[in-house]
Amino acid sequence: MQLLKDRILKDGKVRSGNVLKVDSFLNHQMDIELFEEIGKEFKRRFADQTISKILTIEASGIGIACIAARYFHVPVVFAKKNQTKNIAGDVYTGQVESFTHGRVYDIIVAKEFLRPEDRVLIIDDFLANGAALLGLTKLVRDAKATLIGAGIVIEKGFKDGGKLIRESGVRVESLAIIESMSEEEGIVFKD
Amino acid sequence: MQLLKDRILKDGKVRSGNVLKVDSFLNHQMDIELFEEIGKEFKRRFADQTISKILTIEASGIGIACIAARYFHVPVVFAKKNQTKNIAGDVYTGQVESFTHGRVYDIIVAKEFLRPEDRVLIIDDFLANGAALLGLTKLVRDAKATLIGAGIVIEKGFKDGGKLIRESGVRVESLAIIESMSEEEGIVFKD
Repeated sequence: MQLLKDRILKDGKVRSGNVLKVDSFLNHQMDIELFEEIGKEFKRRFADQTISKILTIEASGIGIACIAARYFHVPVVFAKKNQTKNIAGDVYTGQVESFTHGRVYDIIVAKEFLRPEDRVLIIDDFLANGAALLGLTKLVRDAKATLIGAGIVIEKGFKDGGKLIRESGVRVESLAIIESMSEEEGIVFKD
Repeated sequence: MQLLKDRILKDGKVRSGNVLKVDSFLNHQMDIELFEEIGKEFKRRFADQTISKILTIEASGIGIACIAARYFHVPVVFAKKNQTKNIAGDVYTGQVESFTHGRVYDIIVAKEFLRPEDRVLIIDDFLANGAALLGLTKLVRDAKATLIGAGIVIEKGFKDGGKLIRESGVRVESLAIIESMSEEEGIVFKD
């Protein structure tokens, strides 16, 4: 998606430790007009599929998923990272190791919001080692719902996650795949 | 907002400890068509104001804020609840005591995304004791930005937060104000 790649080149900042800062438009401050173009592109790529629900994970996936959902006309469910007393025991659970936070956390979705008849599109902002996406696919599997695929905004193509998850049979559509990046050489996209 | 009140009566569940579960449409599963009506209503109520940015807090404020932002044509910034290594030191900080989680946590916004020239509308899903809203207003004040007001989806009118914050001079627009609720008597709205 050229608009997105241009924006990453313009406003993204590469930091040491393979960190790509896109917090001016994607995951801290959020450019809603860009999100609308991202949502349209996800819809275009999954236009051949019947989707009943979008699944994402808090926090930075939520905004993109909600805007994308406008084009699919489906509700969004977000996996929560910590059990709260507002959620009863009837939940699907998984574990995710966070690259950003350097720790393992639990994710949960209430069983009533992920049903066997659901046809689920997962949407998230980043795919790197695939931990979050694997955690989300486990929730879909546990619910015996149908996983249609995953729509990712930025994939770190030099990490293992995308390969791992595609080889497991999941359709992954990433709007910008980074082949390499460094503070010295900048960002190079795949293709 | 009658559509919202009807939905709360239909799908909201009152639990002990003054907990109102609206997770089937508001803060776990999210009904995006309802969010669009909520966004339009916030725009209608603040139509007389120039807004440059919407500020919310992760996680459940983000979806509503993003959809509302479509009607204001402004970016959204969400306050993060935990410092991550993706955020440099240059942040505004506050503390929030969570009713839901029963603990105190830090909230942060990068200084570059909240500027003195910003005219900020805060949007959040709930207002009860006002802790999150007070935390967010502090961030706006620390940034020397102009606080235009707060748009709240559900206010627990029997809690002190709304009164406290309105008396401090902040304009608060709540789309549904609950006067009382109990498992036995159900939900009664103000007006």
